[in-house]
Amino acid sequence: MIDEKDFLQAGKRLDDLQINNYKIIQHPEKFCFGMDAVLLSAFANLRKGGNVLDLGTGTGILPILLAAKTDAGHFDALEIQPESADMAKRSVLYNKLENKINIICGDICQASEIFGKCIFDAVTTNPPYMNNNHGLKNPDMPKAIARHEILCTLDDILRESSLVLKEHGRLYMVHRPFRLAEIFASLHKYRLEPKRMCLVHPFIDKEPNMVLIEAVKDGNPMIKIEPPLIVYDLPGKYTKRILKIYGPYI
Amino acid sequence: MIDEKDFLQAGKRLDDLQINNYKIIQHPEKFCFGMDAVLLSAFANLRKGGNVLDLGTGTGILPILLAAKTDAGHFDALEIQPESADMAKRSVLYNKLENKINIICGDICQASEIFGKCIFDAVTTNPPYMNNNHGLKNPDMPKAIARHEILCTLDDILRESSLVLKEHGRLYMVHRPFRLAEIFASLHKYRLEPKRMCLVHPFIDKEPNMVLIEAVKDGNPMIKIEPPLIVYDLPGKYTKRILKIYGPYI
Repeated sequence: MIDEKDFLQAGKRLDDLQINNYKIIQHPEKFCFGMDAVLLSAFANLRKGGNVLDLGTGTGILPILLAAKTDAGHFDALEIQPESADMAKRSVLYNKLENKINIICGDICQASEIFGKCIFDAVTTNPPYMNNNHGLKNPDMPKAIARHEILCTLDDILRESSLVLKEHGRLYMVHRPFRLAEIFASLHKYRLEPKRMCLVHPFIDKEPNMVLIEAVKDGNPMIKIEPPLIVYDLPGKYTKRILKIYGPYI
Repeated sequence: MIDEKDFLQAGKRLDDLQINNYKIIQHPEKFCFGMDAVLLSAFANLRKGGNVLDLGTGTGILPILLAAKTDAGHFDALEIQPESADMAKRSVLYNKLENKINIICGDICQASEIFGKCIFDAVTTNPPYMNNNHGLKNPDMPKAIARHEILCTLDDILRESSLVLKEHGRLYMVHRPFRLAEIFASLHKYRLEPKRMCLVHPFIDKEPNMVLIEAVKDGNPMIKIEPPLIVYDLPGKYTKRILKIYGPYI
């Protein structure tokens, strides 16, 4: 048994991911993963043995969940914030995934220089959602960098995704629905054809607050829109589909 | 009371629209309006006194429904098939709407030449959905022309819509979700910014089979996606939202 204190540092917390006994180190006062990462990990269809890149991995939640849920072969994961990248590396070691997941501290805007072109079967990304940076009190805070397009934009992420993907490689992204038109325009600009989409609504009679998108590099134009993914039947009561994604522990 | 037989011709049928006592002449063996036109008429927010163009009006269902449901000032409606345009004209006369609705037999591809540029507050359209014309046995049949892109394409419709709309004029379109990426790309091409979207699902756990879109000429990029519109609670049992749109007669 690995001693947890060897992996944790002051102020950090080890959270159980409810799958494969995997755990993740997070800092409760900084940025912790949310439902968006969990839903994207369930939405992504990664092919067996495939080579995957996670752009903006934060504390490494997506590759760790995807290593448990899929038969993908190898994950590279890029994070610009050194403290987050360090937590991600420790979580990879804690879960004995160092042969499967490689965390790199670096800039999304340079992904195709760091990794090379046309080499990944899939890219996953849970990028900053907000493009309005006015009024941010501390634009260098870790939470602000994870949530707002301070260090990279949607255009940067999709450009680099297209460059690093092999022909017919797949992009899996979670984002906010209010930016859907811009997302589709940028996907089109970088020859990433949207092929599958799922809107996530907190309740059946509410607007969606997340969108899950699968796009294929140079794919044919025809998109499959899935049934709406509803989170709650009643306040506090998850729907069966959400319970199935989260497992019995929620 | 106007004599119905003066307005009908052999093989045609007069159907009650369940609003304002309006009726519409249709030919049951050719193309009759469906739920898509009714849902689009409920989705469109036409401003009081506005000048509206319906592209591909068929038997005139959209302007006739919208004349009943909104305070729009005047409708022009373009239809390329002479028999459909003739039925639309007779329905307009039957409903005494000749001062409000003007039916023109002509080609959507020439709409901006026929009507002029930058003159409409809104465009409505329920265009042909299918872009795969292979295997069509009779590509000149009225139903085929109404359903398949034989005489005009999505690109033609959005180009002409953008040309005839005033600055910040609104486009209301119903289409098929599988073409959503292409729809967004063409809207972007013609500076029509998608601002509101509603997906229509036959059942809550099924994929959508219609999409309703509002776009604004030179609008700012931010889209509002509405709660999913579900048609049936159970087989044969409409949801409350559908019953509200159709009224008590369904």
